[in-house]
Amino acid sequence: MKSQLKIFKIGGGIIDHEPDLLEFLRLFSEVSGPKILVHGGGKGASEMMTNLGIAPQMVNGRRITDAATLDIVTMFYAGKTNKQVVAGLQKLGVNALGLSGADGNVIQAVKRPVREIDYGFVGDLDETSINASLIHQFLELGLTPVFCPINHDGHGQLLNTNADTIAASLAKALSQQYAVELHFCFEKNGVLTDVNDNQSVIPKITPVNYTELKEQGIIAAGMLPKLENAFDALNYGVEKVIIEHALHINGTLKTELCMN
Amino acid sequence: MKSQLKIFKIGGGIIDHEPDLLEFLRLFSEVSGPKILVHGGGKGASEMMTNLGIAPQMVNGRRITDAATLDIVTMFYAGKTNKQVVAGLQKLGVNALGLSGADGNVIQAVKRPVREIDYGFVGDLDETSINASLIHQFLELGLTPVFCPINHDGHGQLLNTNADTIAASLAKALSQQYAVELHFCFEKNGVLTDVNDNQSVIPKITPVNYTELKEQGIIAAGMLPKLENAFDALNYGVEKVIIEHALHINGTLKTELCMN
Repeated sequence: MKSQLKIFKIGGGIIDHEPDLLEFLRLFSEVSGPKILVHGGGKGASEMMTNLGIAPQMVNGRRITDAATLDIVTMFYAGKTNKQVVAGLQKLGVNALGLSGADGNVIQAVKRPVREIDYGFVGDLDETSINASLIHQFLELGLTPVFCPINHDGHGQLLNTNADTIAASLAKALSQQYAVELHFCFEKNGVLTDVNDNQSVIPKITPVNYTELKEQGIIAAGMLPKLENAFDALNYGVEKVIIEHALHINGTLKTELCMN
Repeated sequence: MKSQLKIFKIGGGIIDHEPDLLEFLRLFSEVSGPKILVHGGGKGASEMMTNLGIAPQMVNGRRITDAATLDIVTMFYAGKTNKQVVAGLQKLGVNALGLSGADGNVIQAVKRPVREIDYGFVGDLDETSINASLIHQFLELGLTPVFCPINHDGHGQLLNTNADTIAASLAKALSQQYAVELHFCFEKNGVLTDVNDNQSVIPKITPVNYTELKEQGIIAAGMLPKLENAFDALNYGVEKVIIEHALHINGTLKTELCMN
């Protein structure tokens, strides 16, 4: 039987509010067994760019990672946020190891090809991106990897990468070796039938009722990419995907996605 | 017989000049056997503070690491510089792993006690600071640790630490297990008898001629702390300390310090 591995992803909504981040880290420190944390960015990088007079580069409403932006997000995500999270976890007795994709070559990304839009220094992941063997060895050493959303291309270029994508790619690659539970943590209690009612959580979504819920227009459009990501991970052998509030990961109110 | 380990330290003079940094990384990638790189900071952090309107805090001519300064140096040293160095080494086929002291709890520092001056968030190291066992396991995995000068206190606080001190402390702790060569790399060819003549390198310094050179006032005052650090490391069992130009680590012009 495969041993369990829990992968948690947190985003800017938690990172930007220090008391929430510390409370999440406390709850995360109580999660038993091998585990991984993936964190996104926060507003800090944008605020610093504003303070430095670096205008955000936008094309067709999409943010572009130009060289100046890449520098700032690398500093914030791989420097400040990652090291504060790692030091916070060490305080709680979790032997955290902060990682960008470049460290140990654990994640190698591919610069997004230029089509209608040149997204700049943004990295996409594919089936060969994750170095599951080294991550497994870190876990075997009792370490808890903490990934920031900065990867590299193997040719010396750092690349900004979506943290949901990193979490899902890690879950898929590590499901060969582990029974993986992937937790997307955010500021709602789960997938809601009514976005204004945080109690209206759909407890379980399978491919069958997912189709129904989509057809009935019950799931908010903003949730669909996360859910597509989640079902993709389940198709690749991830056991369970959980969508839940970052401050209630020890609770029962959550949405569980599984194949049946 | 102990296996060899080479530890290299580079400072701001190399980091601030990208072509020099890339050339150093190329030379470093050609060094055979297990190795470690320790890098200091550079001018980038000070420049960013100026651009953000954060005035450097000075007391009695000494720079103080206040909370705002710590944020910026963490971003620069642990984020930008460390990840650029790691990605640059990956490109050259070196499986580099970027580390702050918080990562894997590899270095635990103690906040410098307040005496005449409160240095702020500055960390000192002692005999118990280095987690030699985990660093050894990283080396056994074929990884090349790359240390930035940011450590933690184990209670969630990050601390700025002198990179020379980190390199010497690593050398001392790892000399239990390895025959350690410690390389201090900078912008001179070694310890000079005439600071204006880069060819006037003293090829070998032992405790005997060190005393003579000091008494004769031949060694520049600025070199003395580095040399005291070096002899301290030798006293703790480090085999050899080499002081050399960062761009000539493969050359023969250098100062070698050893016990006899």
